[in-house]
Amino acid sequence: MSLLVVGSLALDTIETPFGKAERTLGGSATFISVAASYFIQPVRLVGVVGYDFPKKELDFLREKEIDLEGLQIKEDEKTFHWHGKYSFDLNTRDSITTELNAFANFDPVVPDPFKKSTYVCLGNINPVLQKKVLLQVEKPKLVVADTMNFWIGGMLNELLDVLKYVDVLIINDSEAREMSHEANLIRAAKVIESFGPRILIIKKGEHGALLFYHDDLFIAPAYPLEAIYDPTGAGDSFAGGFIGHLARTEDLSYENMKRAVIYGSTIASFAVESFSLDRMRDLSTFEIKDRFNEFKRLSEFTSI
Amino acid sequence: MSLLVVGSLALDTIETPFGKAERTLGGSATFISVAASYFIQPVRLVGVVGYDFPKKELDFLREKEIDLEGLQIKEDEKTFHWHGKYSFDLNTRDSITTELNAFANFDPVVPDPFKKSTYVCLGNINPVLQKKVLLQVEKPKLVVADTMNFWIGGMLNELLDVLKYVDVLIINDSEAREMSHEANLIRAAKVIESFGPRILIIKKGEHGALLFYHDDLFIAPAYPLEAIYDPTGAGDSFAGGFIGHLARTEDLSYENMKRAVIYGSTIASFAVESFSLDRMRDLSTFEIKDRFNEFKRLSEFTSI
Repeated sequence: MSLLVVGSLALDTIETPFGKAERTLGGSATFISVAASYFIQPVRLVGVVGYDFPKKELDFLREKEIDLEGLQIKEDEKTFHWHGKYSFDLNTRDSITTELNAFANFDPVVPDPFKKSTYVCLGNINPVLQKKVLLQVEKPKLVVADTMNFWIGGMLNELLDVLKYVDVLIINDSEAREMSHEANLIRAAKVIESFGPRILIIKKGEHGALLFYHDDLFIAPAYPLEAIYDPTGAGDSFAGGFIGHLARTEDLSYENMKRAVIYGSTIASFAVESFSLDRMRDLSTFEIKDRFNEFKRLSEFTSI
Repeated sequence: MSLLVVGSLALDTIETPFGKAERTLGGSATFISVAASYFIQPVRLVGVVGYDFPKKELDFLREKEIDLEGLQIKEDEKTFHWHGKYSFDLNTRDSITTELNAFANFDPVVPDPFKKSTYVCLGNINPVLQKKVLLQVEKPKLVVADTMNFWIGGMLNELLDVLKYVDVLIINDSEAREMSHEANLIRAAKVIESFGPRILIIKKGEHGALLFYHDDLFIAPAYPLEAIYDPTGAGDSFAGGFIGHLARTEDLSYENMKRAVIYGSTIASFAVESFSLDRMRDLSTFEIKDRFNEFKRLSEFTSI
């Protein structure tokens, strides 16, 4: 069992109705790796940062047993910086600035010791880069990919190309509709499965998630939060918890994949409770297990 | 165990992207009674129709063991007629005509033999009429009420007055937000519970339903339908299945109320599969039980 994660590392400036955080730790690979580190260690990271990436954050990632051998540090460029502002109800967000910086010419290189990784998580980045990583890995047991509307709209052919090699695709409901041209999510799933991924997870935010596993469907509840402070990274944290649990258990059965969806939802529910990665810096195994059980308690019922 | 239902009986003209049905059987009391009749018989109905209400539909209701002693038939007026047209995605609808007819001056009279009914379902009608019915019933064990945005917006004081006597309120998510002035449904539920109902069900359409039972929360999944033909009466059918199961089992525990929510969802999922009441005219116990179990299968997972 070995997990490779590729994606972005960023310094985010985030504004929500609850406050503002400046140049705080962000990026899809960051959230995925830290989330997965609660299930499996080490996590092998492939990404890029600039000279301004704080040393204390590198130390934090190392503390989480995230192997940084695949992390490129560009001495003459700054780290990817995203500044986003959420609407009052947190349902929409505007990108105020997106400075790619070191990420602009990112050419992912998978270090030799990482090439035999059995679990691979392709975080939300350009699908061309996702494929580049895949081509450097030898026969992984499971490839999980995340993507977003930006690539569906702008690089659909490249995305469809990488999907042929993906076992599990994780997207949200509006992305599923956009990608399939189907409003109904059950029909949308069938279209997307025809693109390659035999397993599909559609996230529905506060309404939970759907796991399409061949002809089976699992409806996962969302954790009922009274307040969400910062939705940034929720999807990445979901992906990290999901693949982390699978890599740890090495069990790709339907029953275990349902549990992985709940672990993903569990970690995501923590992620949104504070700004940036803050709530995920020092979770305990007890907290995670406890919330997993809470998901179970909330959705369980018995027949007469 | 005896169940009293009050609400509207109507002849609906319905347009959806899948077709049109003219002057077809509708109304909140109709859907509730027929749904409940699959769980408990007889169902006691209080309502009003006009001279044009088809005899074959009266016969149909009688076949379902719906006791029509409380049904007023106005010989000089027509039946309530609603003409609605749904949007392409069925998420919104326009009322093209609403002719109250016999319903305009409806003065509900609960026949003496109905006055000791132990379970009462107040279908979606003017809250003043809902209260009139309640005042004629002697100490019911459980009062379930449905309402809609029309009354929340236009007769909030009257609605708040009747809510003091209601044990279970069933509303949809947008109505819950409107009534509570809270966007977050968990917080909205707390506000609404302070109005009187100790139990609240918030329906979320294709995303399932939430049951707030004192300090407990149950998250119920929705049945994954690939096509919805006509959403009319889905909420009423839910209410009918819900109270029908409770009246049959006479068990108001949290565990049984969760099952009642699933039975309500089950009947509602059938209701939307055809126009009007068509799919609910001859359901079998086997079909209902089978779909109930399907809800369980779709949302079940195990801990390691």
